Amino acid sequence: MSNPAATPTAETAPDATLLEDFATLSAFGATSGGGVDRQAATAADAEQRAWLHRWLTARGAEVRYDGVGNQFGLFTVVPGAPYVLTGSHLDSQPLGGRYDGAYGVLASAHAAYRAVSRYGASGTAPKYNVAVVNWFNEEGCRFKPSMMGSSVFTGKLPVDTALATTDPAGTTVEAALRKIGTIGDYAGPDVAAYAEIHIEQGRELENEGVTIGLVDSTWAARKFQVVVRGEQSHTGSTVMADRRDALFGASLLVVAVRELAEQSKDFPLHTSVSEMSIEPNSPVVVAREVRMHVDLRSPDEEFLAAAAARLAESVPGIEERASVSVELVQTHGWGVAPFPAAGVRLAARAADELGLSRRPMMTIAGHDSVNMKDVAPSIMMFVPSVEGISHNEGEATDDLDISRGTDLLTEVVDRLMSGALDTEAR
Amino acid sequence: MSNPAATPTAETAPDATLLEDFATLSAFGATSGGGVDRQAATAADAEQRAWLHRWLTARGAEVRYDGVGNQFGLFTVVPGAPYVLTGSHLDSQPLGGRYDGAYGVLASAHAAYRAVSRYGASGTAPKYNVAVVNWFNEEGCRFKPSMMGSSVFTGKLPVDTALATTDPAGTTVEAALRKIGTIGDYAGPDVAAYAEIHIEQGRELENEGVTIGLVDSTWAARKFQVVVRGEQSHTGSTVMADRRDALFGASLLVVAVRELAEQSKDFPLHTSVSEMSIEPNSPVVVAREVRMHVDLRSPDEEFLAAAAARLAESVPGIEERASVSVELVQTHGWGVAPFPAAGVRLAARAADELGLSRRPMMTIAGHDSVNMKDVAPSIMMFVPSVEGISHNEGEATDDLDISRGTDLLTEVVDRLMSGALDTEAR
Repeated sequence: MSNPAATPTAETAPDATLLEDFATLSAFGATSGGGVDRQAATAADAEQRAWLHRWLTARGAEVRYDGVGNQFGLFTVVPGAPYVLTGSHLDSQPLGGRYDGAYGVLASAHAAYRAVSRYGASGTAPKYNVAVVNWFNEEGCRFKPSMMGSSVFTGKLPVDTALATTDPAGTTVEAALRKIGTIGDYAGPDVAAYAEIHIEQGRELENEGVTIGLVDSTWAARKFQVVVRGEQSHTGSTVMADRRDALFGASLLVVAVRELAEQSKDFPLHTSVSEMSIEPNSPVVVAREVRMHVDLRSPDEEFLAAAAARLAESVPGIEERASVSVELVQTHGWGVAPFPAAGVRLAARAADELGLSRRPMMTIAGHDSVNMKDVAPSIMMFVPSVEGISHNEGEATDDLDISRGTDLLTEVVDRLMSGALDTEAR
Repeated sequence: MSNPAATPTAETAPDATLLEDFATLSAFGATSGGGVDRQAATAADAEQRAWLHRWLTARGAEVRYDGVGNQFGLFTVVPGAPYVLTGSHLDSQPLGGRYDGAYGVLASAHAAYRAVSRYGASGTAPKYNVAVVNWFNEEGCRFKPSMMGSSVFTGKLPVDTALATTDPAGTTVEAALRKIGTIGDYAGPDVAAYAEIHIEQGRELENEGVTIGLVDSTWAARKFQVVVRGEQSHTGSTVMADRRDALFGASLLVVAVRELAEQSKDFPLHTSVSEMSIEPNSPVVVAREVRMHVDLRSPDEEFLAAAAARLAESVPGIEERASVSVELVQTHGWGVAPFPAAGVRLAARAADELGLSRRPMMTIAGHDSVNMKDVAPSIMMFVPSVEGISHNEGEATDDLDISRGTDLLTEVVDRLMSGALDTEAR
């Protein structure tokens, strides 16, 4: 451990500077209900990006943008060396919470600056530099898919595809990014390791009174695009036997999706339909078409595959009952994928030295770290979410947990900069 | 019967002038699928209103607009006398058919002009004048509620309420009408009687090979506004037991509404949910709120009341299963209401003299005549709809039926102008 300045924080008050910065950040796109609305490449996103730009520059970082609007703050201590990258995303859902993503970016900025300052004060040189990243469009509400910036960075999504994506008003990602001016030609840093901290968005840590979750793997997920096709007709006069009601068919499918979860016994299964596009969506016209997404997640891949099969089996009965056709196509998905065990151990030791309670966890939600783990050794950490509330204005995390998480991230970044993970048995 | 020029038409070819005018009218707002999109007070509505204005003026009518944009074409033969009013509506659903409403307005224009011409040629004076009406916003898709123009005219809806109504973009009825210029200060004619012809929008006439439906009453209807309230949360990470999913609750209600019809035995029951407003309608956020309309219709009032009671009884179970609250409020409705028997007899005799087969019917759909019958003796007639298709681009009626219906309406208008209904035993 290279850093003699590290001190246990379990007993201390929260860091006032961090909380002050978080309050400033939370004002961008603030909603009356205590949350934020700052979807990707909107005016509120532009404001917070400009603020982060100034914050980083004022502390000695060079800020650069890549071709999909990822924002990097480079603290170059050892010219020519690769970077430890740490970050998350500042964009939010409409009526989202203040913590989702934004906490991770701010904690990363503080952690990187603290670690660089420590190395400077101690006179020792780290093995790696450190860079802060604010990934573009993690939420995927204005522009689909989610995790867009990290998907392009990790080569999973072609940049041209991302830039050509349009929002519901027809604006492309490229036009929106050019309008707010945060797009560039930076290729991104050479990444030695990646670290991210995020709110849990569940209630396991809170229920067990544990401060830190160390993510050892992801739940498996399968996502489907569904199109239910019926026929437009008059809601009043069309006899029931003649109706081909796409909204009735879609509703039967929503219920069938929920029943998959209700009937699950061996493993947890999370099932969701949360968005529908209904045509023509008139009070007096039977719907001719409904498009929607189905999201299935489980910690067990075989169990998830069986649930997907049961969903497909429910389709013919729905088609017959509603006289519609149902197209159910899996658009993407992922298996139960591990984060490197060496990273979990490194973070566990750092937590122990800070006196922070911790437990291993799986992540159910997708995060930019889920992309990054496929291209660099990655460490993902959680702090508790009050009542597990997320994607909601009421999202909250205690100030002390905010502060402790940032202390832990500082230690992790410091150790990664020292090259500690290179010598750790993987 | 005052008009010696009437000739039976059952054997003749369709009227070429009428079909030519119908083709011209069908070009306004024409869609690639063979239908029309000319919602109330849009550019396409403005074009067809201007065309009708010219058509009427060229044939001697004076065109005037009232305060809610109803368009009247006054053929004044006997100055100071009341008017027989005949018409329907030119506005359509988005991706609607060419016939719904528009056929009735065009048939009325032809019938009124023919009747006036006959009286002029014969040298006899009628008892009443005749006026053509194009009611504003019958469809109610852009601005709710439907049948807006005739509701204001008949005193059922305050004009200020109608004018302040907004479309989804926030444009008021008043602003939209002023933009297209078809709003005025005309109070409307003094109405001696009302006649309307419309496509059936069902398949009873076609199934039985009958040309004319004579509407003797309306089905009863009840309409409900539903608000399902849940809580916004993360579709991935929120555990199922914590979810308060408004879209799941709404889907359960859609299924319950359909089951009311599926379980009906004694009487027909038409049940519909065709429009939903989902918040926030994001693929990764559990819906916090769904608003929708429920529409129940039956030819029997008591049976309909029992169905409404069963719907209300289904709510607590849905609230419990989805952990949501459901607000179900009846916004309006109507009973089984008769059209005057004397009008049905008058139209039946006219049909018989023209050699047109006819049968009595109930109307399931709402029409402007359903409003008008409460303020003036009203006659409502149907022509067949091919396969009963309506509110659909594929809506169709045979040319010969179009022509025969117009011939019948001409006879009915002629007789109403002569005062035949005043002496008919009611």
